[in-house]
Amino acid sequence: MAVGLSGDLPALHPVRGVRLGATAAGIRNKDRRDLVLIEVAPGTACAAVFTRNAFCAAPVVLARRHLDRAAPRYLLINAGNANAGTGAAGLQAAEACCETVASLGRCGSDEVLPFSTGVIGEPLPVERIQSAVGPLFGALRADAWADAAHGIMTTDTVAKAISLQVRLGDETVNLNGIAKGAGMIHPDMATMLAFLATDARVDPGLLQRCLAHAVDESFNCITIDGDTSTNDACVLLATGAAAMAPLVSEDDPRYPALSDAVREACTALAQAVVRDGEGATRFITVEVGEGRDRAECRAVAYAVALSPLVKTAFFAGDPNWGRILAAVGRAGLAGLDVGGVSITLDDVCIVRGGERAADYTEARGQAVMQRSEITIRILLGRGDARARVWTTDLSYDYVKINAEYRT
Amino acid sequence: MAVGLSGDLPALHPVRGVRLGATAAGIRNKDRRDLVLIEVAPGTACAAVFTRNAFCAAPVVLARRHLDRAAPRYLLINAGNANAGTGAAGLQAAEACCETVASLGRCGSDEVLPFSTGVIGEPLPVERIQSAVGPLFGALRADAWADAAHGIMTTDTVAKAISLQVRLGDETVNLNGIAKGAGMIHPDMATMLAFLATDARVDPGLLQRCLAHAVDESFNCITIDGDTSTNDACVLLATGAAAMAPLVSEDDPRYPALSDAVREACTALAQAVVRDGEGATRFITVEVGEGRDRAECRAVAYAVALSPLVKTAFFAGDPNWGRILAAVGRAGLAGLDVGGVSITLDDVCIVRGGERAADYTEARGQAVMQRSEITIRILLGRGDARARVWTTDLSYDYVKINAEYRT
Repeated sequence: MAVGLSGDLPALHPVRGVRLGATAAGIRNKDRRDLVLIEVAPGTACAAVFTRNAFCAAPVVLARRHLDRAAPRYLLINAGNANAGTGAAGLQAAEACCETVASLGRCGSDEVLPFSTGVIGEPLPVERIQSAVGPLFGALRADAWADAAHGIMTTDTVAKAISLQVRLGDETVNLNGIAKGAGMIHPDMATMLAFLATDARVDPGLLQRCLAHAVDESFNCITIDGDTSTNDACVLLATGAAAMAPLVSEDDPRYPALSDAVREACTALAQAVVRDGEGATRFITVEVGEGRDRAECRAVAYAVALSPLVKTAFFAGDPNWGRILAAVGRAGLAGLDVGGVSITLDDVCIVRGGERAADYTEARGQAVMQRSEITIRILLGRGDARARVWTTDLSYDYVKINAEYRT
Repeated sequence: MAVGLSGDLPALHPVRGVRLGATAAGIRNKDRRDLVLIEVAPGTACAAVFTRNAFCAAPVVLARRHLDRAAPRYLLINAGNANAGTGAAGLQAAEACCETVASLGRCGSDEVLPFSTGVIGEPLPVERIQSAVGPLFGALRADAWADAAHGIMTTDTVAKAISLQVRLGDETVNLNGIAKGAGMIHPDMATMLAFLATDARVDPGLLQRCLAHAVDESFNCITIDGDTSTNDACVLLATGAAAMAPLVSEDDPRYPALSDAVREACTALAQAVVRDGEGATRFITVEVGEGRDRAECRAVAYAVALSPLVKTAFFAGDPNWGRILAAVGRAGLAGLDVGGVSITLDDVCIVRGGERAADYTEARGQAVMQRSEITIRILLGRGDARARVWTTDLSYDYVKINAEYRT
């Protein structure tokens, strides 16, 4: 069902220094992979960004705390239960899982990062997770990226993964990423769950800046329903297993290639999350240009991307451009001269000078709306800033999926 | 289909100095009343608030302009076409309609206020409106409030009207109101279209303050889909036909009775708009208390009221309170201590101290969720400000209505 995604994953090259495993721990549904363990070599640098939701989940609290103390050796990720809104008991549950991993992995429990996704407010089934961790250790493999991509899914209909090879000076490094997320998607610093790993050698501070920049241009530019999750997290691991001098500065001539690759991987994963958005039948890019600053361009882009009226019109394939215009108008831009605004659907100009373009016809609008991937381009006519947001339409299936989620 | 509204209007007393008429002008659908004319006596005071959408419609622009010049004698209201996004031609169309009314009503065209609601971006069928205005004049009656309430409907399933009698000193005055609006409802200073009239004698400046206050507590506290219309308008007319000394000051001992009645009428109409919200199956009150100021209480209330995940859970009758908690957490409150937050559904406490209340059971939550009218009460634990917002759930029918609106 995902827009423009076949569901077939590309070939996923191993990343030296990373082993993975996935299993069905019965956390919510039986016979479905829902627990993933990622092991990274000693000395791996780790960058991470987390949700800004005030009600961040217990695993987010604990992962932040552990990252302050140590570089991680293991990431333990469960689907089916978010361990959010669970208070002190939720923190203890996450800690207990980390301790089990630490004991089997012979490391400190602060070298284990926990991640959870699923229903909010239910107790984490700690014993089921602990029982499954032992077999997971036995199953760790370098070529299990696809298994891991499947193991972190919740309402996703397809797994999401990317694998890039990047030339850094004389050395070719690998960069892999997996992500999940199909609802409660309006990331604020990160998306639901995304994990990237490279075997490049990168200074941790540089790695964090590299990730923050990539996330700002990718995961922080998508929205499905405007609801920022309690569990968002995006992690970039650099094992340093490649035979290369470490990257420590943005000025290193090799850095742009890595930075571009990380942004490319994050963008591909973020777009895949949108393409697999709950009930999505269309993939919509909202581009806003000629604004005074990026903030106002983003405000307009999100007003359009989040409008239920715009989203239902796209679901219907109806070029009801008045709804786009109304959303632009309510975005709160001070002193907006509507006479300077133009709106284009792909190659068809629908609004020019704040009113219907003279050469616009309903037939031309209809033709664009039959496409499954559409770009709305809005020019504000008052500056040179711009922003871009990716979103979906709003369909019956979105309501169905979210009305029946817990049944 | 409207939640808690039978569709039967109450008895609507005439308001001295007001006559009304409604007819089917064939603006969008045949054989459906879609054009309303309201005539008020000379000397009537008029207060009005309009949308803050930057793309406000041609009739809004013109009504504001006319109000600056003269007190109105006629209000001409059409459904089926919003005359928005129509540029200079739209302004000319609205002016032409006003001129026809002025000519037949023997007044200046700036004594006519135009209002439109319906599809955005299509040319107003001026000739059809002009042809219908003549017969409308012949049909003006003091007891046609119900006809007018029906004539302004678009996707509304029931007409909305209220009639109050208010004791002001020795005189009893009438206060009537009608409203429409079922989608694109997130008023910012006014709602879709609401018209109120009283035969009290009130100074125009005082009347404007009275209306602004009432709207702030009523229409500006509702949301269905977060989309602020291009055509919102709320008008309060005071004909002064009652035998009373004019009200000119808030300090007049008779003023509170009028102010309370206007607020009561606006609240009843605003709630009726929500109860008839597109696809609504539940009427939801979101109360937020213990905030630092009203602004942050409103931010939290709207984050919850607009969350598609919260709204679909209510449609399903699912007490998925984690979604409420997540919406509170993403409302952007600086330094919110989640440990101080509690959430109640009607009489059932679901979250206390930021986590599931010890005495909460799924069965108790389910019991509340079976009701068609539910109050979500959120206490932030950091002040004594509060705010209240009314909204609906998000159902299949919302998507259906808005996907098929123009077909």
